[in-house]
Amino acid sequence: MLSQIFPSAEGEVRRELFPGVEARVDGGEHLTLSRVRMVPFSVVERHSHPHEQVGIVVEGSARFDVGGFSKVLGPGDVYRIPGGLPHSVHALDNGLFALDVFFPKRLEYHGAVVP
Amino acid sequence: MLSQIFPSAEGEVRRELFPGVEARVDGGEHLTLSRVRMVPFSVVERHSHPHEQVGIVVEGSARFDVGGFSKVLGPGDVYRIPGGLPHSVHALDNGLFALDVFFPKRLEYHGAVVP
Repeated sequence: MLSQIFPSAEGEVRRELFPGVEARVDGGEHLTLSRVRMVPFSVVERHSHPHEQVGIVVEGSARFDVGGFSKVLGPGDVYRIPGGLPHSVHALDNGLFALDVFFPKRLEYHGAVVP
Repeated sequence: MLSQIFPSAEGEVRRELFPGVEARVDGGEHLTLSRVRMVPFSVVERHSHPHEQVGIVVEGSARFDVGGFSKVLGPGDVYRIPGGLPHSVHALDNGLFALDVFFPKRLEYHGAVVP
């Protein structure tokens, strides 16, 4: 129970989503919380997923292309990506550290095999 | 549409949750994202809500009491609070900046009148 309330770093899942893009994945019962670090100029390629995504930039900056809209975001900026909307992210020269939240859980992030 | 994907600071909701505890509230369709700043030694009094809560400390530190468990958390530490579990937070001498996510949306945070 304690480890579920205060998860240890040992229990978390780390995934390289794209070259130079690493996620540390935690989550609750219904949510996925992903801490994403992008090295300078790395790219989250255009993709989509049925999950709603809400995130916030903590450090660095990147260009977010979401649907037909494009914006450079920096520390404190929030983004909201409805389920199914294609999006990509290009880190700028200082890289990016952002927090992403997904609903429902992205089961494949947590290690499950999703058909 | 643009303002929904990249919300402006003007559109966000600010709430003083407790004395010295301010939240800036954003959210998606299903989620509430709350950026919480606690001044040194401020307190989120013991309370509970049916919403699941997942959060991460960005800066500072605080003692989290969740159910029967207690832990001092600092930058990068994650906490997961199942719906219905009473919890309180005591900021330490450097205050706290944390991100909270709730599912389902905490409608009262977004300005709705909840019976």
